[in-house]
Amino acid sequence: MDYWKKSVHFEKNIFCADCHGKDIEANHEKRIRVDASRCGPCHKKALEEHRLSKHGIGMTTVRACTRGIESSAGKEKSCTFCHKPGSAEPVVHAECAMFLAQSPEMQRQGCNSCHIVEVRCDTCHTKHGTDLSLAKNPATCGSCHMGPDHPQVEMWESSPHGVIYRHGEKERAPSCVTCHMSKGSHNVSRGIVISLPEGAVSMRKQEREFMVNICAGCHTEVLAKRNLDDADRIEKASRQLLEEAQQIVEGLQKEGLLYPSPSERPPHPLFGTSFVIGPHMLYENLSFVESLFFKMKQFYYGSSYKGAFHQSPDYTHWYGNAPLKLTLSEIKSEAALLRQVNTIRQRVDNLSSLCRPAEGEVDEIKKKLGELRERRLQGEITEKDFETGKMKILKEKGL
Amino acid sequence: MDYWKKSVHFEKNIFCADCHGKDIEANHEKRIRVDASRCGPCHKKALEEHRLSKHGIGMTTVRACTRGIESSAGKEKSCTFCHKPGSAEPVVHAECAMFLAQSPEMQRQGCNSCHIVEVRCDTCHTKHGTDLSLAKNPATCGSCHMGPDHPQVEMWESSPHGVIYRHGEKERAPSCVTCHMSKGSHNVSRGIVISLPEGAVSMRKQEREFMVNICAGCHTEVLAKRNLDDADRIEKASRQLLEEAQQIVEGLQKEGLLYPSPSERPPHPLFGTSFVIGPHMLYENLSFVESLFFKMKQFYYGSSYKGAFHQSPDYTHWYGNAPLKLTLSEIKSEAALLRQVNTIRQRVDNLSSLCRPAEGEVDEIKKKLGELRERRLQGEITEKDFETGKMKILKEKGL
Amino acid sequence: MDYWKKSVHFEKNIFCADCHGKDIEANHEKRIRVDASRCGPCHKKALEEHRLSKHGIGMTTVRACTRGIESSAGKEKSCTFCHKPGSAEPVVHAECAMFLAQSPEMQRQGCNSCHIVEVRCDTCHTKHGTDLSLAKNPATCGSCHMGPDHPQVEMWESSPHGVIYRHGEKERAPSCVTCHMSKGSHNVSRGIVISLPEGAVSMRKQEREFMVNICAGCHTEVLAKRNLDDADRIEKASRQLLEEAQQIVEGLQKEGLLYPSPSERPPHPLFGTSFVIGPHMLYENLSFVESLFFKMKQFYYGSSYKGAFHQSPDYTHWYGNAPLKLTLSEIKSEAALLRQVNTIRQRVDNLSSLCRPAEGEVDEIKKKLGELRERRLQGEITEKDFETGKMKILKEKGL
Repeated sequence: MDYWKKSVHFEKNIFCADCHGKDIEANHEKRIRVDASRCGPCHKKALEEHRLSKHGIGMTTVRACTRGIESSAGKEKSCTFCHKPGSAEPVVHAECAMFLAQSPEMQRQGCNSCHIVEVRCDTCHTKHGTDLSLAKNPATCGSCHMGPDHPQVEMWESSPHGVIYRHGEKERAPSCVTCHMSKGSHNVSRGIVISLPEGAVSMRKQEREFMVNICAGCHTEVLAKRNLDDADRIEKASRQLLEEAQQIVEGLQKEGLLYPSPSERPPHPLFGTSFVIGPHMLYENLSFVESLFFKMKQFYYGSSYKGAFHQSPDYTHWYGNAPLKLTLSEIKSEAALLRQVNTIRQRVDNLSSLCRPAEGEVDEIKKKLGELRERRLQGEITEKDFETGKMKILKEKGL
Repeated sequence: MDYWKKSVHFEKNIFCADCHGKDIEANHEKRIRVDASRCGPCHKKALEEHRLSKHGIGMTTVRACTRGIESSAGKEKSCTFCHKPGSAEPVVHAECAMFLAQSPEMQRQGCNSCHIVEVRCDTCHTKHGTDLSLAKNPATCGSCHMGPDHPQVEMWESSPHGVIYRHGEKERAPSCVTCHMSKGSHNVSRGIVISLPEGAVSMRKQEREFMVNICAGCHTEVLAKRNLDDADRIEKASRQLLEEAQQIVEGLQKEGLLYPSPSERPPHPLFGTSFVIGPHMLYENLSFVESLFFKMKQFYYGSSYKGAFHQSPDYTHWYGNAPLKLTLSEIKSEAALLRQVNTIRQRVDNLSSLCRPAEGEVDEIKKKLGELRERRLQGEITEKDFETGKMKILKEKGL
Repeated sequence: MDYWKKSVHFEKNIFCADCHGKDIEANHEKRIRVDASRCGPCHKKALEEHRLSKHGIGMTTVRACTRGIESSAGKEKSCTFCHKPGSAEPVVHAECAMFLAQSPEMQRQGCNSCHIVEVRCDTCHTKHGTDLSLAKNPATCGSCHMGPDHPQVEMWESSPHGVIYRHGEKERAPSCVTCHMSKGSHNVSRGIVISLPEGAVSMRKQEREFMVNICAGCHTEVLAKRNLDDADRIEKASRQLLEEAQQIVEGLQKEGLLYPSPSERPPHPLFGTSFVIGPHMLYENLSFVESLFFKMKQFYYGSSYKGAFHQSPDYTHWYGNAPLKLTLSEIKSEAALLRQVNTIRQRVDNLSSLCRPAEGEVDEIKKKLGELRERRLQGEITEKDFETGKMKILKEKGL
């Protein structure tokens, strides 16, 4: 109430019912949500721009992360995860695997605290006030754009841009909105090339020029282009390390050397007990090498190139490149160990079938017990069968 | 001196000797410590509240972390670690295992820089000034309540509360003291349910209501309760992941698959060479899976639920839930590998006893040398014995 | 232009050409670099001090990190990496291994964004302005002195010094320059004992006294000395843990138990396929235990003692001491596993040579196939040879 009275909404005679509707009971029962569809009619341009950006993608496809998935049969394309067949009508149950693998409370407090941005303007804007300076504060962006998966705010803070900002020159220093919401646009994806397909050459060129133009407000275009091109190259090199790691993990999977194997694990919510390493890979129920790979993919790869795009040498190098390469080494080394153990196991299998039991020095009992134990160790019989068999052998000899 | 002259103490005629005593020599020799017992007579309420909280628990039980330990015999309860038998008199040498495992300098610069809060008011308050705003600054709380073991200040900073504070609205935004030292109380444990036993239903209910009441200063009670209940559920789910991991580690220990085994390690300061995985588990001298478990227990479990209690989605999810589940996967996978290697070893043992040495193609020397080598590899004889034996075999044949 | 007009340079009639020279074309083609050699003639004292410090060491030896390396032959000393034989003239291609292992874009955006401080004054000072307060801001120092390899700014922020600074008392609180650039000196290495050889007793004593004298501006000398001595001891204890780990890794290398082995890896840019674990150890192409060791050496060792020197208990303990000891445990445990697997492999080798193929129960075909499979598993024949051999055996028997 107090916030509203100090807001532009109050000045312009926007009253409670204009946003919350007139059904007081429904409001008290929390059945009314003041989401983007309420704000849109007045803030048309902002909503349109938002819908075009990655921030708003959920409004049209339910959840961004269902894009591109294939059905478990692996053949049909993803449309039917989001839409009724032959229709644009959304199938609302479609969700992302990461989300589905979580408990309801983790969905609420973890996933949706940030991803709600797709449909709720008050994720960034305060609920009843209209103070734009808070929405524009990097701390607001940073409450989601932080942490191991994409530490953009930390990168910016440690970049020359952030240093000047922290020094107190908040007008001079470029912050998140300076580059990503240029001229107040809500299309936060403008100027970002990375999420465009490599083949979309002219689109990529156009977006890069858009960003260079923003940089040119302070820097020469040559400098801006050079730095962004370097970041492109760093992204590509980092992606190659990731692909190298992926091939090793896939190789181990084909050789049956992931423990536990995908078929022994709780099912993936979209793909069951299939092996999943693409965009729908989870951090649940993995083997050791897959866990290492997940960290490369979700943490270090992004830190490496996003650090470069945000001019943070430390994130680029020590939070990105270094752990990316260290973890690739760890995966290679672990793969070598798994293969070595497997070769030894195969050789023991072979020796077992080749080996002739000793005689003479050991008596018949020892020989029979040894053969029984080998069957136990190979998993052919249960511990109980082993004990029963052992008793029988001893009894036969009157022991 | 300058600070004191600007302080309330100066205004109220509190002079040097009132705190430091009149023995100048003892002061110069650092034998006088101005601890909570000096401040208490004037600041009675604060001291009483402090003693009731987790901050002050050390004043009555020497060290918080000796609570709950059992004697090495595993039968007597913990009283005698802190008290003379049949007496409330404290046994001052009782300490926590974590503390005892450290060098004196690490005890001073690591442990006690924070845990001294138990007996020293100037851990938070400045020594000679009386400026409360510094003691109340989140940076003061954060100098201890930070880092991998309990990143509360980082969680708060990335929560909506912290964002508003960092935006400059320091009066409007709730900081540490707003919720945890409500109305200036020094009992920082009020409203915290997590450290109460699950069975203490009415106490837990009372403390929860206390906190909801604080939240209600800004939010509806429904919203506050819903979020705190979610955090409860996240704590429980995280604890279950931890317990699952603990059972795996305990299983490996029973099967003798921890390398090095507890009996081969330097002794635990309280429990010797016993296996320790409970509250007195150390981060020293562990096997690989125990090290992974320690990180789950001490770092990721807490980040998960404390992140939720402090409204930081990134800490809840990416610093808590994700590494908690990734590390559980790693422990499971490592356990599978250790068991596989052990089965192979047992099968080789079995084959060794079953196997009849080859004859015909290889001569007797090769057979004898092979048997000797096997005894060496099984650790039955030393390298020197092997060399001596080898020489003897060759000599016998005139080689 | 705007910055320059507000600068002291403008006031003192320092014009464009005074720094950039008169060759406009060369400037536009970026052939002119305004480096320390341009600033030096006017800022003599600053440049001299800078050259004496670790910050300026690159100006005389090309790259700090080539110091101390030996030639690949392992016998000649490092001079010739930087200088023409018998001459002080620098060999400009000499670089550090870490730098050489990077792509050109990572060299630019990662390494040189910070290490350029060696020759460029505008790494800390702004390009055209002369506002010293920005250069002195801890955020400026922190943009390089941050992150896993040396989180000095994070340590300071969480120390009592940083807490007072963040509370707003920026004049009262000591920041980076207070202690490391005392009286405006550009020799940032004054008062730092750690990089001096242990044998240089009097130099170390002198530098320590220099620092204690700075501390004494606020604290008693006794307190200052005690804390710095504790940090010395913490450094020593941490170094011992590092050395213990190094010996284990070296032991595994001697036993041939690093996978992949140095000879199987891409060559080190300075030492080829030799095993490198000293100052020129890379984070590229390591085995699992070496990767763990690298993190101890480059991340946790420094956090431990630098945390103590900067009065941050959390960095000293939870970012330093704890992961240092946890990782040492992991290395020991992994070494035990690698040795166990190797022993099993040797025993299987031995059994293979000892074992007499079974007869009677299995027919000749099975025996021959088993022997062939064992040769395949030992790597004596290729998969193709195995298949050919198998076909031959079956054909011989008319199958």
